[in-house]
Amino acid sequence: MFKNILIIGCGLIGSSLLRGIVKKKLTKQIYIFEKSKKNRLITKRLFKKVKFLKNLDNKISNMDLIILATPMSQYKNILKNVSKYITDKNIITDVGSTKNNVENLIKNNSILDRNFILSHPIAGSEVSGPEYGNSKLFKNKWCVIIKNKNKKKLRLITKFWKKLGSNTVLMKTREHDNIFSITSHLPHLVAYNLIKTALNFQQKNKNNIIKFSAGGLRDFSRTAASNEIMWRDIFFSNDRNIINSIDMFIKNLKDFKKKIQNKNNKEILKILKNSKKVRKQIIFMKQDVAKPNFGRDDS
Amino acid sequence: MFKNILIIGCGLIGSSLLRGIVKKKLTKQIYIFEKSKKNRLITKRLFKKVKFLKNLDNKISNMDLIILATPMSQYKNILKNVSKYITDKNIITDVGSTKNNVENLIKNNSILDRNFILSHPIAGSEVSGPEYGNSKLFKNKWCVIIKNKNKKKLRLITKFWKKLGSNTVLMKTREHDNIFSITSHLPHLVAYNLIKTALNFQQKNKNNIIKFSAGGLRDFSRTAASNEIMWRDIFFSNDRNIINSIDMFIKNLKDFKKKIQNKNNKEILKILKNSKKVRKQIIFMKQDVAKPNFGRDDS
Repeated sequence: MFKNILIIGCGLIGSSLLRGIVKKKLTKQIYIFEKSKKNRLITKRLFKKVKFLKNLDNKISNMDLIILATPMSQYKNILKNVSKYITDKNIITDVGSTKNNVENLIKNNSILDRNFILSHPIAGSEVSGPEYGNSKLFKNKWCVIIKNKNKKKLRLITKFWKKLGSNTVLMKTREHDNIFSITSHLPHLVAYNLIKTALNFQQKNKNNIIKFSAGGLRDFSRTAASNEIMWRDIFFSNDRNIINSIDMFIKNLKDFKKKIQNKNNKEILKILKNSKKVRKQIIFMKQDVAKPNFGRDDS
Repeated sequence: MFKNILIIGCGLIGSSLLRGIVKKKLTKQIYIFEKSKKNRLITKRLFKKVKFLKNLDNKISNMDLIILATPMSQYKNILKNVSKYITDKNIITDVGSTKNNVENLIKNNSILDRNFILSHPIAGSEVSGPEYGNSKLFKNKWCVIIKNKNKKKLRLITKFWKKLGSNTVLMKTREHDNIFSITSHLPHLVAYNLIKTALNFQQKNKNNIIKFSAGGLRDFSRTAASNEIMWRDIFFSNDRNIINSIDMFIKNLKDFKKKIQNKNNKEILKILKNSKKVRKQIIFMKQDVAKPNFGRDDS
């Protein structure tokens, strides 16, 4: 499909891309640019044929596809270098979780603006690092691709994600950032703050409550173990939508509190039953497995 | 261990007790009182030797151990009947998630007060019904037993849960209800309200966002599919502690929102890093498995 692919940043996502690309034979040669020596060593051990770029220099112009897979706070510096060397023969894409910030970085640079197709695979884990990479990470997951007037390059990027097993969907930047503030960014923010609330309680009551986390908190702690650099970048990049979703959520919490205080049986049951219906839809849409969870000892 | 055990209510927990008791041979004869015909049929198919009580009548006095495993809103009526027939030879326990409300039901009835040892196994699932019952549900899970001056019966109930594989811990009612408002009740309430927020968004934007739930919302939807009757009862029974925990949580959300607005990098990173440490503790304390989650296709 390509002659040369360059992946910039080889953590969990970069390494999963690398594994998927190699497995599906999507390129003749694969290049990695990765600042961490440890990550380079892990990657080298896995794939002898990978070539590492020491700098983002004129070799860039030979890369048919360049994929940014670093935390988004590094995009600005990377793109400054990349834009010096690319031509209209190259395609750039990324895997960042918010898109308006990336669009802002490229819109005043015509060479980037013409050749950058923004994408966002809805895939990941609470663990980080190339050692956890998985060639199937993108399989049967959505990959959002941001609409672009360059139809040819849009088709090529769409084909690339499909080859990795993803279901692709086209969106506008605004729509993307709005939707994922609710389905992804708010849940993560909530998980982090639930854990913080438990820590506050523990400090105040001098009581080890973490050990009783199996009743619910445990499940949130997995989400709240996600990479802190990645999530700080998301919270800062999509701040307006996220703040709106926090406000919507706090309003619901306050309403629910009032319903508890008034022992509003009917309304509470309605909310709880509606949640169950959403769960059924999520399973029906194959976003999760139906298999119930009985805690750590189920098998 | 016992001659006759009666389980009142044979849903997920009741059926798991039944299976565990039969497997560990903790009684000569097991009795079930269950109002739902469907649940009785499922139970009968599984265990031919189970006897069903049609009414809570004088047969009660022959039961060495009586276990309440219904939603807590049914306790009052059940205990009215049970208290007519029990003597100091019987022991009663329950599996309810809040304890102050149960204590209030029994404290003015001396025969109940003398023979009721309150317990709460920290085990369950998002699914309901006897068909999901599992003899190992309580294995390696905490079971909280409420302190009681009747040391003999307290020892017997402790032994009972240990035989089912639980790790037991003694608590005061007040301590129990306070701790679990944070580690269990708040996380469930938050999950229900996250799903509600997503539904509100979907209605407002006429946009199907549920299908993009793999980025975080999905994991909360499992918790938010838990039994609505059970959870309504918990929210109403432990209202004061739960309202306090909602307030603590909203305060943290508002602080976090301010930190996003002020781009307070250092503070945000600190909260995110602390969460990751709690996750490590939870795994260390064997409240969850370390195995990372990569979404529905991991295996």
